[in-house]
Amino acid sequence: VDLKESFRGELEGDRVIVKDSVESGKIHNKGSVGRFSGGMLVLTLTEAFYLINEGKLSVDGVSPYEFLKKAALSSGDFEVRYLTYRDLKKRGFIVEDTGIDMKIARGGEDIKKAVVPLYERVPFDFNGIYSMVSEEKKIFGIVDGDGDLTYYSIEREEPHGPIKALKEKIEITVLNEMAFTENNEIHRAYYGKTIDKWLQLSIIESIYLVEKGIADIRDALSEKISPEYLKRQAEKKDPEFMQKLKIYSDLRDRGLIVKTGFKYGTHFRVYVRDIEHHAPYLVHAVPDNYVGTWPEISRGVRLAHGVKKDFLLAEASDPPKYLKVKRVRL
Amino acid sequence: VDLKESFRGELEGDRVIVKDSVESGKIHNKGSVGRFSGGMLVLTLTEAFYLINEGKLSVDGVSPYEFLKKAALSSGDFEVRYLTYRDLKKRGFIVEDTGIDMKIARGGEDIKKAVVPLYERVPFDFNGIYSMVSEEKKIFGIVDGDGDLTYYSIEREEPHGPIKALKEKIEITVLNEMAFTENNEIHRAYYGKTIDKWLQLSIIESIYLVEKGIADIRDALSEKISPEYLKRQAEKKDPEFMQKLKIYSDLRDRGLIVKTGFKYGTHFRVYVRDIEHHAPYLVHAVPDNYVGTWPEISRGVRLAHGVKKDFLLAEASDPPKYLKVKRVRL
Repeated sequence: VDLKESFRGELEGDRVIVKDSVESGKIHNKGSVGRFSGGMLVLTLTEAFYLINEGKLSVDGVSPYEFLKKAALSSGDFEVRYLTYRDLKKRGFIVEDTGIDMKIARGGEDIKKAVVPLYERVPFDFNGIYSMVSEEKKIFGIVDGDGDLTYYSIEREEPHGPIKALKEKIEITVLNEMAFTENNEIHRAYYGKTIDKWLQLSIIESIYLVEKGIADIRDALSEKISPEYLKRQAEKKDPEFMQKLKIYSDLRDRGLIVKTGFKYGTHFRVYVRDIEHHAPYLVHAVPDNYVGTWPEISRGVRLAHGVKKDFLLAEASDPPKYLKVKRVRL
Repeated sequence: VDLKESFRGELEGDRVIVKDSVESGKIHNKGSVGRFSGGMLVLTLTEAFYLINEGKLSVDGVSPYEFLKKAALSSGDFEVRYLTYRDLKKRGFIVEDTGIDMKIARGGEDIKKAVVPLYERVPFDFNGIYSMVSEEKKIFGIVDGDGDLTYYSIEREEPHGPIKALKEKIEITVLNEMAFTENNEIHRAYYGKTIDKWLQLSIIESIYLVEKGIADIRDALSEKISPEYLKRQAEKKDPEFMQKLKIYSDLRDRGLIVKTGFKYGTHFRVYVRDIEHHAPYLVHAVPDNYVGTWPEISRGVRLAHGVKKDFLLAEASDPPKYLKVKRVRL
């Protein structure tokens, strides 16, 4: 916006109308703000408040602070929309507030991206967002408690890798917290860790291998035990165990190598070809019909970007669904 | 351990005894392993299993894999102790397994550090650990599902800063998700963010300021509202709100500058002198009598170290308690 004069508008419900057609034309042409209707310029509350704060618009009989209060009363997310609009304008975008999302473009550009403005405290509804991004990725502008904006792109992901299913039949001994096997050959598919002459396996790996018919599990007294028993034991100590098992199993079925994400602060790190090459994903497993929070998303993205990986949020639905979330700089 | 020969021991309960006094002396002298008792060398199961795997010890009538199973039956955390012991030995330490922690020293050193070996699935009991570190910091060796070790040092922390309490009396307008004030002067104590001609405040800042007698809060219709009402509203949307408010208030009372940690994936970032200088802490608030998990601790430390800050776990007890957790490389 590069207007030298200040114009006058009238507040009418959730719109501000600039009735003088000469003035309207100037505002619209200079800043690509608002929509023409019957020779008048119609501004949304966010557009109007932005122009007010830029000193380009005054609204009859309403001080700027009064305008802020009136706008917040008329629209439950006014502050959030306004802060997003303002941030996008300050980044040099042409912004159109559609009332749902903010369509943005650089000057001269035709293709418009859309940014969905949300407050950090709005729930993160996995299935709702999964539906929203069915066609293409979407950008979400999250306003935090400090009024700062962080932008995330979210898209569906179908991870897959080349690791073939094993044909071996092995025996695993489950001890107290983990398992061992003398059958080291499964290590070629990146199960377990070589400890001395054996392979140490996690409980999750052991359950997967027995469910795939690759392993029998025995306890330290050589009694055969069922995967169901192991699952019940694991669930007692880790309420997230079943969702983790489901995602672990699905990623393994997809030919990927899955290792614990403990050191990385998440559930799994996932490799594609082998564990010598960079792991492209950190994966966080959530239960079916998950409704979480944006701070959890921010956390996962931070953890993943800090080690140059992508963050996958994996919902343990049937079949599991994956969302790839990245922080973007507009 | 640099033994060229292999010795023979006998399994007796949860100990392995090397009865031949010449052999015992050699093992003990070369590797500083075990304790002498009545001319015999007494080894813990971890020490014995380590020597077995190094090819330095055989136990009469028990194969190495059988030994592993017997040891796991006799000690509920044998695998975890063994993997920790083994990792410390491979890092070049002299290690003494006391049955509780592992005392470690470098060759020639007198002062011994202690490492507490734990499996990642063991609960993280805030108050238990707070008691354990009353005298000095402790090192915890956490074994993850892959059998890998991560070491954390934990100590008490009493954060404090130089920011003086405000004496102003201001008015705050709470809108839908955040608050604004026309009284910009409180910004010198780093409350709020300047948005146009006003200061935008978070709900948590607003409640703190009203509870300190600095602010009155009104809604968009200029009706006065109570901090209790705001707390109830905030708690509906954020189940962690009350613990966050308590820690926010305590840190502000301690003269620190507290800002949202949203972008960093945690609750708060804390500055000492001003917000231009580096923020030394990321703070995660947990409820009173908190029992969490080690993966949560690992996550917090990762997030903080990724941005060169210390991770403070803050328990909303009365008064609040702080633990500083760092990852250490031994």
